[in-house]
Amino acid sequence: MLLVTLGEAMIRLTPPNFQRLEQAHSLDLYVGGGELNVAVAAARFGTSSLWISRLPDNPLGHLIANRARELGVETRIEWSKGDRAGLYFAELGAAPRPSSVLYDRAGSAISSIEPGSVDWKSAFAGAHWFHVSGITPALSKSAAKVTSEALEAAKKAGLTVSYDLNFRRKLWKPDVARNVQEPLMRYVDVLITTEEDTRVVFGIGGRNHETYDHVDADAYASVAKELIDRFNLSAAAITLRENPRVLLNTWSAVLVAERKVYRAPKYEVEVVDRIGAGDAFSGGLIAARLQDRNWEDSLRFATAASALKHSVPGDFCLVTRDEVEQLLKGGSLRVAR
Amino acid sequence: MLLVTLGEAMIRLTPPNFQRLEQAHSLDLYVGGGELNVAVAAARFGTSSLWISRLPDNPLGHLIANRARELGVETRIEWSKGDRAGLYFAELGAAPRPSSVLYDRAGSAISSIEPGSVDWKSAFAGAHWFHVSGITPALSKSAAKVTSEALEAAKKAGLTVSYDLNFRRKLWKPDVARNVQEPLMRYVDVLITTEEDTRVVFGIGGRNHETYDHVDADAYASVAKELIDRFNLSAAAITLRENPRVLLNTWSAVLVAERKVYRAPKYEVEVVDRIGAGDAFSGGLIAARLQDRNWEDSLRFATAASALKHSVPGDFCLVTRDEVEQLLKGGSLRVAR
Amino acid sequence: MLLVTLGEAMIRLTPPNFQRLEQAHSLDLYVGGGELNVAVAAARFGTSSLWISRLPDNPLGHLIANRARELGVETRIEWSKGDRAGLYFAELGAAPRPSSVLYDRAGSAISSIEPGSVDWKSAFAGAHWFHVSGITPALSKSAAKVTSEALEAAKKAGLTVSYDLNFRRKLWKPDVARNVQEPLMRYVDVLITTEEDTRVVFGIGGRNHETYDHVDADAYASVAKELIDRFNLSAAAITLRENPRVLLNTWSAVLVAERKVYRAPKYEVEVVDRIGAGDAFSGGLIAARLQDRNWEDSLRFATAASALKHSVPGDFCLVTRDEVEQLLKGGSLRVAR
Amino acid sequence: MLLVTLGEAMIRLTPPNFQRLEQAHSLDLYVGGGELNVAVAAARFGTSSLWISRLPDNPLGHLIANRARELGVETRIEWSKGDRAGLYFAELGAAPRPSSVLYDRAGSAISSIEPGSVDWKSAFAGAHWFHVSGITPALSKSAAKVTSEALEAAKKAGLTVSYDLNFRRKLWKPDVARNVQEPLMRYVDVLITTEEDTRVVFGIGGRNHETYDHVDADAYASVAKELIDRFNLSAAAITLRENPRVLLNTWSAVLVAERKVYRAPKYEVEVVDRIGAGDAFSGGLIAARLQDRNWEDSLRFATAASALKHSVPGDFCLVTRDEVEQLLKGGSLRVAR
Amino acid sequence: MLLVTLGEAMIRLTPPNFQRLEQAHSLDLYVGGGELNVAVAAARFGTSSLWISRLPDNPLGHLIANRARELGVETRIEWSKGDRAGLYFAELGAAPRPSSVLYDRAGSAISSIEPGSVDWKSAFAGAHWFHVSGITPALSKSAAKVTSEALEAAKKAGLTVSYDLNFRRKLWKPDVARNVQEPLMRYVDVLITTEEDTRVVFGIGGRNHETYDHVDADAYASVAKELIDRFNLSAAAITLRENPRVLLNTWSAVLVAERKVYRAPKYEVEVVDRIGAGDAFSGGLIAARLQDRNWEDSLRFATAASALKHSVPGDFCLVTRDEVEQLLKGGSLRVAR
Amino acid sequence: MLLVTLGEAMIRLTPPNFQRLEQAHSLDLYVGGGELNVAVAAARFGTSSLWISRLPDNPLGHLIANRARELGVETRIEWSKGDRAGLYFAELGAAPRPSSVLYDRAGSAISSIEPGSVDWKSAFAGAHWFHVSGITPALSKSAAKVTSEALEAAKKAGLTVSYDLNFRRKLWKPDVARNVQEPLMRYVDVLITTEEDTRVVFGIGGRNHETYDHVDADAYASVAKELIDRFNLSAAAITLRENPRVLLNTWSAVLVAERKVYRAPKYEVEVVDRIGAGDAFSGGLIAARLQDRNWEDSLRFATAASALKHSVPGDFCLVTRDEVEQLLKGGSLRVAR
Repeated sequence: MLLVTLGEAMIRLTPPNFQRLEQAHSLDLYVGGGELNVAVAAARFGTSSLWISRLPDNPLGHLIANRARELGVETRIEWSKGDRAGLYFAELGAAPRPSSVLYDRAGSAISSIEPGSVDWKSAFAGAHWFHVSGITPALSKSAAKVTSEALEAAKKAGLTVSYDLNFRRKLWKPDVARNVQEPLMRYVDVLITTEEDTRVVFGIGGRNHETYDHVDADAYASVAKELIDRFNLSAAAITLRENPRVLLNTWSAVLVAERKVYRAPKYEVEVVDRIGAGDAFSGGLIAARLQDRNWEDSLRFATAASALKHSVPGDFCLVTRDEVEQLLKGGSLRVAR
Repeated sequence: MLLVTLGEAMIRLTPPNFQRLEQAHSLDLYVGGGELNVAVAAARFGTSSLWISRLPDNPLGHLIANRARELGVETRIEWSKGDRAGLYFAELGAAPRPSSVLYDRAGSAISSIEPGSVDWKSAFAGAHWFHVSGITPALSKSAAKVTSEALEAAKKAGLTVSYDLNFRRKLWKPDVARNVQEPLMRYVDVLITTEEDTRVVFGIGGRNHETYDHVDADAYASVAKELIDRFNLSAAAITLRENPRVLLNTWSAVLVAERKVYRAPKYEVEVVDRIGAGDAFSGGLIAARLQDRNWEDSLRFATAASALKHSVPGDFCLVTRDEVEQLLKGGSLRVAR
Repeated sequence: MLLVTLGEAMIRLTPPNFQRLEQAHSLDLYVGGGELNVAVAAARFGTSSLWISRLPDNPLGHLIANRARELGVETRIEWSKGDRAGLYFAELGAAPRPSSVLYDRAGSAISSIEPGSVDWKSAFAGAHWFHVSGITPALSKSAAKVTSEALEAAKKAGLTVSYDLNFRRKLWKPDVARNVQEPLMRYVDVLITTEEDTRVVFGIGGRNHETYDHVDADAYASVAKELIDRFNLSAAAITLRENPRVLLNTWSAVLVAERKVYRAPKYEVEVVDRIGAGDAFSGGLIAARLQDRNWEDSLRFATAASALKHSVPGDFCLVTRDEVEQLLKGGSLRVAR
Repeated sequence: MLLVTLGEAMIRLTPPNFQRLEQAHSLDLYVGGGELNVAVAAARFGTSSLWISRLPDNPLGHLIANRARELGVETRIEWSKGDRAGLYFAELGAAPRPSSVLYDRAGSAISSIEPGSVDWKSAFAGAHWFHVSGITPALSKSAAKVTSEALEAAKKAGLTVSYDLNFRRKLWKPDVARNVQEPLMRYVDVLITTEEDTRVVFGIGGRNHETYDHVDADAYASVAKELIDRFNLSAAAITLRENPRVLLNTWSAVLVAERKVYRAPKYEVEVVDRIGAGDAFSGGLIAARLQDRNWEDSLRFATAASALKHSVPGDFCLVTRDEVEQLLKGGSLRVAR
Repeated sequence: MLLVTLGEAMIRLTPPNFQRLEQAHSLDLYVGGGELNVAVAAARFGTSSLWISRLPDNPLGHLIANRARELGVETRIEWSKGDRAGLYFAELGAAPRPSSVLYDRAGSAISSIEPGSVDWKSAFAGAHWFHVSGITPALSKSAAKVTSEALEAAKKAGLTVSYDLNFRRKLWKPDVARNVQEPLMRYVDVLITTEEDTRVVFGIGGRNHETYDHVDADAYASVAKELIDRFNLSAAAITLRENPRVLLNTWSAVLVAERKVYRAPKYEVEVVDRIGAGDAFSGGLIAARLQDRNWEDSLRFATAASALKHSVPGDFCLVTRDEVEQLLKGGSLRVAR
Repeated sequence: MLLVTLGEAMIRLTPPNFQRLEQAHSLDLYVGGGELNVAVAAARFGTSSLWISRLPDNPLGHLIANRARELGVETRIEWSKGDRAGLYFAELGAAPRPSSVLYDRAGSAISSIEPGSVDWKSAFAGAHWFHVSGITPALSKSAAKVTSEALEAAKKAGLTVSYDLNFRRKLWKPDVARNVQEPLMRYVDVLITTEEDTRVVFGIGGRNHETYDHVDADAYASVAKELIDRFNLSAAAITLRENPRVLLNTWSAVLVAERKVYRAPKYEVEVVDRIGAGDAFSGGLIAARLQDRNWEDSLRFATAASALKHSVPGDFCLVTRDEVEQLLKGGSLRVAR
């Protein structure tokens, strides 16, 4: 079973040991990007994954493609001569200082991707699922067009389509995000999001949770239902994070499908690196569905997988299917030896 | 508005990754020292800062001055030919092992500073505030004399004078600390301290809090009042730390001024590095006062700033005014992106 | 007073910063092994320690012996020409991902140790205590024979004999472990174990604690009593760990001797590295007994020492007797300066 | 054009900064192994590469396969449950201390590879070239059988076959190496070797060059001719290294084919890491031939590529085709900016 | 005496240990940029330095300004809200692989600097020398205009003006470089350049030195004379590098002034980091001239200073005046102890 | 056979990667000191070694003693309560910047060592050789007295006594060095030195070799003879270093004994770390003599051992006897595998 994703991956640079960027004398280098992260997670869990992107034909572009392949993802890259690789600088925080991201991705290769440049027919040959997030259309007007083109082609090719809202305030404004994405929803089968993003982009959800110390799963189920109704989805999943501290969160999710509400267990997570946890959830959900698990099991699998992701440095979900199964069975926190 | 501080800054050497000093094969190098830390914090928050010190004219001495300038502090250094730079080795702990400091500062350049060697008139030209801590007079007899000289000159020049008691058991004994410092109090407008230091040095406070699992803000307000009365201060601030664990503390403060008691919110802090938190408080308080904030707002600003300091490795408060304001508004612990 | 231990020590390789092994590009190198760890802890607390082992005559073998000496342990090594050094790869986890160990010790030098090759008479000359754990007989049939030989010789030589059950599921099966070790118990004076190991190996204890979120000290005392009765021991000690999280545990112990039950305080430990904590307990207990402390004080000393071990990276208990005494007096978690 | 290679790749562990293994506290981790190195180099230069191996199904095994894929090599791995990954420890030297390798590869997964376990038909489908080195048959008797099986199958399938003698004194003895490998030569088209290996294994070459300060290209051409004659080869290539120092060598090669002798330029190489240089030569030669370059150009390409390899840490030839072409044109050593 | 410089400084990211960028998992972070490097060198040698630039008001921009101050350079920064910091990735090579730079500086804050935005009058108040290089006008059209504006203002204010041709092929083409810079030459008193840049930009010099294994000081003197004549300069200096290897170069310079030719000694340099060596030369020359040394002594000082720079990692000339003087006296290469 | 040495060992702190101290953010930590280095080298080559010193009873003091034991040296430490550990900061250079040492050892524990505090009778029980260098008497007056006391006791106890002149300009002046050391020479059997130290301290040698590009072995033999005559020695050895570059030296030695001149081969050494090379020579010479090698073989062994030392980071000679023998046989610089 083959998953195809489309999006940017960037060089991620993080100061070691909770340093502030301003005091760094070296930076740890990772690769990450929403849709690639999803492809990696799905590949780790047994799904064939293909990631489509546009990268500069320089060492940084090749580094990014290499790392995708390292984690088991096939790549279909349009190599560009003059552009740059997107970068982001991530500072890891500790309460009361939140972690923070400084994007330096303007003008990156994928922002110049041209509609018509990807041969969707061959890209989707043999594929069963297509996933993209709200970051891709936020990158540029042409990237938004290509996103739309991809979604339409995927739908036409009979693929299941999932979409992660992934709102990035540092990339665009809520009203633009709404205007661009509402028309895309018609192609979407499964919407994956957070309560916060749904509220900000689609105005669904209502109350403004300033701090997210405690979250209300019931309310989130209603949000999911409303999304399904408004956009005629098969399913909607919402991940739930409580973060009274930066280094200790809880993590859970609800999913609504076929008029039923499913809830995952709530995990207490000691946060090594939470960037990419949502993508691990998507990758886990897609892999589970493509392996014919039912919605409830898929939700449970996805939530456990993404809970484990919090313990792994970098964007990628370097977790095995066995480890997820072990956790679902009620894993021990003792040293395995 | 210009702040002037006087004191030693040292090379700080810390084994990485919670190693014990005895097992280290490399040491992380930082620069720190009470009064320089205060100058750095104030400079970060928009105050011009000048730090006065004496350093050896060798690579270590220049390293120290360079790092002060890096963080935006002007320096007025008496370069000494034969002396050494003060060093301290800091081991970061985890419950039940406390963090620990091994000083190697005896005979450092500033301990030979001579009364009369600093031209206080020119040093204080254009200045509005002078700050020094109880570490400087503890370094040597001549350093104590220079401290006294500085305080007197500052008072004469019409500066506001703040003093952090900063008792260091590894530098001197309580009775010496009392004998040396009581006469200095006549020059002080704002005293910044902890309940523990006040009790040990001035015998104010009474009960011996062995563990400091929980602290009583009311009692501390009384201590502050007593300090104001005894030493005829304008204000007294006491920082409050509860540390049931090494890596998770709470942090707050009370301030008494003009017969009113002000209390800061209590922050739960995930401790990356707590050394320098008290200095960040002082720097924040001074900067806020110099920017004409009232005592309550200044206390709140200082407490939030120093709460954030706990998340930053090294002695310096590498935090921005914006981040403090954000926290005061009730900041989110989500990733900012 | 001289402690002798027998067993393997390995090169331990750990990815830095909570990395998964699969993503590592460098590995931190430590040395560790149950019986060497015990010898190190006892030596740190003032006991002369001699560690007996077999190592390859190559840089890795010498590295291991060097590090034992570095920590104050005398070594009696049979240098082997063709064999390899045992290795283990340790991944440090964060909830909900447990830490994990990948052994690569098959065919290591000590697994070819031959009965008769150690001159026990000279090895035990002047010695007062012999300690070995259930890992040594698990390494190979000949290692099991040598273990038996050593125990018999120690007993004959009038040494106090302690044995840590230390069951390793990745080395052998419970029934084999039982068959091999039951006959060894006749030589043992002090058995040190966990409730889990006792249950798995000897079937004592009954209830299966899947998660060990909370442990019941009373039940454990009964287990200790049953062990004493079954194997005619002088004393049995059981360490108690609650681990609702990976990075925050509680740690305590019970000990039964002379028909009395002793309980140690329960410590909340922020886990830097828990590997070797049980060995630190054994080393602390032995050192305390050899310094003529009574059972209660010895238990308290051992528990505090091993609680402190959790804060030290690597297998070794790099803690001083002073630090243990300080903690027993109710140590502060403030920075010592 | 597709290259297939067969062999082991190992985890390589190297102390940083010229440290001796005995003093290391961390090790840099690379992946390397003769035939994988060749596949990587060829892939970097534009050839599709497939690497066949057997690896343990544990994090180390997956790490190895991941890194192969990262560098663009397809993998066909037989995943084994119980075995271990081969390791080697490499110490980098400086004159007069040579670099040194400590193998820990006995009992690694590939040593248990069984004849008949690889489906050579499908493995060679669409392939044009097969490469293996003298390390693979040295690993175990069954590995030698599989090597023979592979060579025969490759020949039958019409592939060009290259063989690198790669004698490893730490793996087997010269006479065994000769007895095992002479029968394999009948399948070989292109033999790649050093004068030293040829002399030790096949007794061709005669004089014993103790130090290799200076090498004689003419004599080497005779050796190549003799190899061609004895084993009925299409071509024989011999790489030539002069190493008056450890960190500064010269590097060149001769190739004899179709009765003509070709000589590559001699490069002065500042040695960052020479391990894998011979494999880079093989990979470059194969890629060039598969891209229809003539023997002379292929030799020149291979020599330049492998000269550049010396500047790259790790076993892999992280060099681009452009960089090789640039060097062949007489590249500048100025900073390219 | 005050030096003013104008230009960009960037975040420089370099893989450690000669790694290729493509294989990096961490990057060492330095700050560098031609005109800032000059200001740093001059400040190290006793000249007051002011660096004028435009930087983004984000952690990277502040990092850059901080590091300038750390090294003793005053800054006059126009803080921009929306722009990015320039970056460059530098790979350090070893023969036959040259070091290489990958710029990622398009759209950096300084490229949007506007003519009229700098108040040159106040910037040049009290100044004696202005320095800029050919990189600044290459950044953007508006940056070229500001360069011209600055040069004109400096001349009007009576400053000595120096200009380093610093041609960067990756920023612009030779003919554009010529068209933009020829009109600027009228303001220049001292031109500092290399033979290569002069030839490429102004067509002066003639022969194309492909490899620069050996350079001819006499020919360079003629070039310098021709530059003086064509542009009516006071002096022209040309630095001479021979680089038969990447890690071992020679370094020297010639200077023509007042119709006399001066030659510096030739230094053999073991290259740790040659980036910034030319800037160290400029900074040394300016500092020496501002300290009233004659042309010959200034040339000797500048050449020795920049020879020493090669031994320092990063762009900055972290060398003291004493060290330069020592080398000029014929310094020993023994350990100073 | 037992060697006893007396002297200080310090914490050595070195910035990584050729950084200047002023730019360091971490320091590599080693332990070193002339007489301990000698003890380590001798122990590595099979001699029992005992090192006598005085250290502070704090983590740094214990670290030093631990590392001595790690390398196989027995220690006899007088633990002091209040003193400090000696430190030194070592900058590694590259031509034309020499490596440099910044001592911070004033007031270290050993400088307060008291005559009479060491029980020389028990210290020398079973010993055959005593070694000390000119650093120990340079530390303080009481250290000089203890040195004299030790030499006298050693002579009385019938030990062979060796003395390394080891002049340190940063510790004392030539005339003081002469006055203090001349009376000590009466106890010395074997003097080990450099031509430079002999000339500066004893005025033997005459010509001032400013740069030591090339050294003249014959002249050095005369110096050795003169030393033997003046001080009635059994033997005198002089090590010869040519250092036209910092990272590439030659290394050799001459020895005169029993009226014969012996010369060692000259080695070209790629310098990783030359600090401690002279001590490795002494340790090698002593070990060889104690193993009954004749003077010529001992000289050859010592020279080869110390040539190898240059390739090892840190002060200690982490080299094996096998490696030395290999080099003496004319070792290959090829990778040993």
